This record gives sequence, C-alpha cells and structure tokens, in this order.
Amino acid sequence: MTTDLNLTELELRAIGAELNLADGHPRQDLTKSQCDVVAQFPDLFWFSRQQIFSEIERKAQTAFLTALGQHMAPVQAGRVYSVYSSSVATMVLANALRGHRVAMLHPTFDNIHAILSKVVPVMSMSESEIAEIRFSDEVDKQATCLFITTPNNPTGWVLTQSALEGLCCYCLRKGKVLCLDVSFRGFDIRAQFDHYAVLERTGVEYVLVEDTGKLWPLQELKLGFLAVSEGFREKVHHCLSDVLLTVSPFLLQLVEVFSLDGAAGGFERLHALIAENRKMIVDALDGFEDIKVPDCDARISVCRLQLPTSLQAEKAYKFLTSRGVHVLPCRQFYWERPEDGARLIRIALARNKKVVAEFLSQFSMVLPNIRETRASGR
Amino acid sequence: MTTDLNLTELELRAIGAELNLADGHPRQDLTKSQCDVVAQFPDLFWFSRQQIFSEIERKAQTAFLTALGQHMAPVQAGRVYSVYSSSVATMVLANALRGHRVAMLHPTFDNIHAILSKVVPVMSMSESEIAEIRFSDEVDKQATCLFITTPNNPTGWVLTQSALEGLCCYCLRKGKVLCLDVSFRGFDIRAQFDHYAVLERTGVEYVLVEDTGKLWPLQELKLGFLAVSEGFREKVHHCLSDVLLTVSPFLLQLVEVFSLDGAAGGFERLHALIAENRKMIVDALDGFEDIKVPDCDARISVCRLQLPTSLQAEKAYKFLTSRGVHVLPCRQFYWERPEDGARLIRIALARNKKVVAEFLSQFSMVLPNIRETRASGR
Repeated sequence: MTTDLNLTELELRAIGAELNLADGHPRQDLTKSQCDVVAQFPDLFWFSRQQIFSEIERKAQTAFLTALGQHMAPVQAGRVYSVYSSSVATMVLANALRGHRVAMLHPTFDNIHAILSKVVPVMSMSESEIAEIRFSDEVDKQATCLFITTPNNPTGWVLTQSALEGLCCYCLRKGKVLCLDVSFRGFDIRAQFDHYAVLERTGVEYVLVEDTGKLWPLQELKLGFLAVSEGFREKVHHCLSDVLLTVSPFLLQLVEVFSLDGAAGGFERLHALIAENRKMIVDALDGFEDIKVPDCDARISVCRLQLPTSLQAEKAYKFLTSRGVHVLPCRQFYWERPEDGARLIRIALARNKKVVAEFLSQFSMVLPNIRETRASGR
Repeated sequence: MTTDLNLTELELRAIGAELNLADGHPRQDLTKSQCDVVAQFPDLFWFSRQQIFSEIERKAQTAFLTALGQHMAPVQAGRVYSVYSSSVATMVLANALRGHRVAMLHPTFDNIHAILSKVVPVMSMSESEIAEIRFSDEVDKQATCLFITTPNNPTGWVLTQSALEGLCCYCLRKGKVLCLDVSFRGFDIRAQFDHYAVLERTGVEYVLVEDTGKLWPLQELKLGFLAVSEGFREKVHHCLSDVLLTVSPFLLQLVEVFSLDGAAGGFERLHALIAENRKMIVDALDGFEDIKVPDCDARISVCRLQLPTSLQAEKAYKFLTSRGVHVLPCRQFYWERPEDGARLIRIALARNKKVVAEFLSQFSMVLPNIRETRASGR
C-alpha cells in the first residue's frame, strides 16, 4: 500500500525509474558555467586544504545567504551552523526543542513532521492561519514554538514580509519561538526579502533551516545551515556536536562558487527553467477540464495537480508507476488529515524540459485508462 | 569548564589551532595515488551522473567492505544502507531501537551515548565483561540490545572472532539484538575477520555501523553505512527515510576508488604511518617514568597517555591548549564514571609525522611546568 509508505520511500522507488518526477531534488542538466566549476573540483579540494576552515565556512555561508537576499544573517556573529543537510539540521533542531510544544504547518513535507513528532508534541496550523496570524485556541494557548515551511512544499505558499513581521510580534508577545524551514527560498524571489533583518530587529527567538540542496544538480553534494538567535546558540551548538565536528570544507567551497554563479545569472536561468516547465504543464492540462493546477502562482520546483472528485491520487500513481512514470501522491503531505490530499499529485519541475514533456505525453495517454477503469467499476 | 563540554566541542576548539591532535579524523597528507584520484574528481562526477545509482551504491559498498575483509556483508541482499556519516547512522539506529533497553560499552566516544540515551534507556558494560561474555545482572536480565564499539575508541580494544561467536550465541539465547560500531576497523587487521559471516551464520538480529570517514584525508568527504539483519531491515529503512533519499553517487564513487587503492597497498601504508607515530610517542615517553601508554597493543589512529596520579588531565589539557597544542582529556569517554578518565589524555595519530614530533617536543617542555605548578600547590 502506498499509503503506508512515507514520501521519501515513494521517491526512493523512483530512483533509476524511466521517468522520475517524484523527488524535489534538482536533476536538470548543469549549465555551461556550472560545468566549468566541476572542472575545477581538484583545485577547490587542494585550495580548501590550505585555507583556515572558519574562513572557508564564513565565506560560503555569506555567499549563499547574500545571493538569496539574507544580508543580515548572523554569519559574523557565529550563529550560522553548517550541517550535512536540511533534514539532519531538522533532527538537530528537534533535539534543541526538547520540552517545547510545536505548532507546525499543515500540509508540508512529511519528514519534518516525522522528525519533530518523535521528540516533541506537535499540533497543526494552516497557511491561512499563519498569514492572518489568527490561530486556534490550542496553538495560541499551548504551543511554545511555531514551525513554518516557507515557501511551502508542496503548495508554493510564501510567508510575506508583513506576515513575518506580524508573526514576530505575536511570538514575542506570547513568548513563542519561531522556526522557519526556508529550503525552497532559492526558487521564489518573494521569499528573498531579508528575513534576518526582520527577525533580528524584533528580537524574537528563532531558528532557521537553510538548504543548498534544492538548487543545483550536484548529485547530493549539498549542505544545510541552522541560523539561530542568541538565545538558541548554546542549545543548537551542543545538539549539533552530537552529530558532527565540521562539514566538508570542499563542500563549503562548492556552495560558495555555485552561489556566486547563481547571483551572476544562474538563479535567473533556474527560475526560467522552472517557470517554463510549469507553463508546459498548465498549457497541456488546459485540454483536461477536470484536472486543475491549484497553485497557479507557485514558483518552487514542484507543482501540484488536482484530479477529478472521482479519481484518487493513489490510483493515478499506480497507473503511472506501472508505466515507469513516477510522481508523488499527496496524502502524506497532509500529516493530520491525509484525506485532504487524496486527489492531489505532486510533480517535480527541476528536470530537463524533455522529461516534463515526456511525462505530459504519458499522462495524457494514461488518463483515459484511469477514467475507463473507474467507469467499469474495477 | 572543559568538563561541561562534550568531546566534539573540545575537538571543535582545535580546528584551526596550531597543533591539532584532538580529533580522530584523518589529517595526514594524501599519498601519491590518492592525489591521482583527486585529479579525477571531474571524471568521477560526470561518470556518476550517467550510471544507475543502485549499481554505483552496490559497487562502492562491496569495494569498501571486501577491502576490510567483510565478504559476507549483505550488500546483494539490499541490507546495507548508505548514510551521510556514522553519527547520522547512529541517530537513525537509535530511532530504530525505540522500545529497547540498550547495554553499551563503557568507556567509548561520548556522542554514541549522547545519541542513544536521548531515545532509549542505556546501561553500561565493560570491555572485559564483553570479552568474557559475563554480564551484570542488570545487563543480563534487562538489556534487550548490546551496543559495542570495536575496535573501541579510545582504548583500541578489539572484539575477537571467538568472542563475537560467543556473543552471537548469547544474544540469540537471550533474544537480544547485537549492534556493533566498527568505525575504526580499517586500522586493525585483527578486526577484519568477516564479522558478517559470523553474524549471518548464527542468525542473530544485528545492526552494524560502518564508517569510511576515519581512513582517508578527504576533508570530511565520507559516508557511513548501516548493515542490518533481515529482522531490522524494514525499521532501519523506514527510519533512514526520515533523514535522506540517497547519499551522493559522487561520494560513493570516491569510496569505491579509495577502497580499491586501500586494498592495493593504501591500507598498509596507512597502518605503517599510524604504527610509526605510535612508536614515536612510546619511545619519547620512555624518558618519563610516570607517564604510561596504557594500550600498547592498540592499532587505531588514537593513543591514550596515562598521567601521574597527582596530575589531572584537565590541567594538562589547559596548559597544552594555552600553547596552541590540542589533545583530548578523557573524562567524557567514561560516560558513566568520568573519574575513571581523569588522568588520561587522548592523542590523534592520523597526522603527518612532523605534527606528532612537534607535539612531543611541546609536551616535553610543558610537562615540567605542570609538575611545578602542582608542587607549588597553585
């Protein structure tokens, strides 16, 4: 049963499949200038052996964060920690949150919920509740920490600057910690206002999970970062020391060079690819009246499709996978109310255009079959 | 206070220090053939984009495990999982052990205890209890899992084949799970008998933590592996999916090529370097009657020194660090009885010879000062 598996387990089935549009990892071709960096791998390796680690780390963090508008990130203050990945960062954060009661965004990628709920009690809040800063009594009275994914995966919803400002004031007033997972920020310039300027100005206690792993097709050569307010420095530092001494200076250098390339036009090219792939899907589905793209304004590297009332995502998933085409059914994103995701599938967009085109061709062929099966009651 | 910090926090202080003999990570120069591999980084990157991931993974795991004598490791059976590092592997294992009561080796590196004790109740057992398979009533009656580091860090103690065989029978009889952390196996051929042949033959439930990160000076480009018996496959697979989709195929290829180089003479050269560094220390300390090397027969890449009864390791540590020389005081290895480590320091040996020589020179100079301070009662 696909409903027994988590999203990563479903994504793992797609590794090596003919057509993998399941995971949100970047699998498009490298650009010309990215290829040039790969040619410099040996130089970067030898260079990072000669340099002082803390300087390499500071330069990489600065390059990455400023390329995405985060000029006030506390790099100089030593409050940005490098981690193997955003998921390992989330595991460390979960341990640092021991004793808290966490309200977290619903829906969102299921491993965040899986990691947090193993360590702390978790309750849910919606995108609109966060946008309007109007929470349920449970969240308002019981939560000591809010955990928000922005841009959200899979919806593409973004926390605006004014909402973040309001949220900071709310958290300060109520004595709550604010945690943001901004792993998909690189795709959406609306999420690239300086979050740290807002956070530091208001003085709220915060932890941010940053991720380099969604942007560049580097075969999982990536890092995560944990950026924290002063009040969380010691806890996060200590919890992180259970897991690692330092990350690789070679990987830090990759992050620096790819960030500089991103700032010099690379991110624009990436945004164009994602936008073109999304448009290809929207245009193609124009012909199917009962299939909708619910998040028209999303910019992140995944896209949801809403299937007709009568068609369960699991059935579509099964049909597609039997033909070597992998996407994600969306129940698991809705960790509190799976039924809300029962008619949604998620398609990865960080792919070459021909992969998306091939998906659309297969999807159009498969669709009548699914409908037919339904009609015949099988 | 150094006693408030864990070992990794102490190691972190040594990153960038003049003389870092604190952490057990490999920091020696690369050999000629290792340098040749670095020159091939771009080729390895492009090659791994073209290949099927599962084949790259299987080849890397096979090359690494067979180079270290582990021919019966369940690679083909799909029961070896790749992880970012051995510590992340331990975090995943801890989650897979939920509901267990774990007896673990004392002393051993403190992050293993920190990770496990956050998730499961932990009790202690000693090297001699394990070697003789003669446990305390508490371990015998209450533990549902034994967790053993072999070779052990910091002592270099090794679980022999006959002890492993006896242990497997004991665990089978008592219905206990056997977990081994074999991160330092690569340094000691006495730990390179085929553990998996024993484990699989007896049919005991097991989980092994393997680590590529101690052997090659690759600036933290490394992987961990979790190898499991059939009964643990599903649990570990599921817990791992909270943390990662796949590791990097580029890193898997590095592991493959460095393993082949190790099997073709690289490991012998590494063993020679560690042995020479250890001998340099033993010889130099011959002149100091009251300083002992307690683990004369150890082969791993760290070496303990036992200080005189009157000299606390923390005092020696403080004196040395004030001169830019970093080692580890050993209290924290003794997670149950810190006092047992109060007169021990640990010195890293995976360093260039001149680093060890420089340490010895500094240590000889510092030693009289420490003694003097003691004499004057300050």
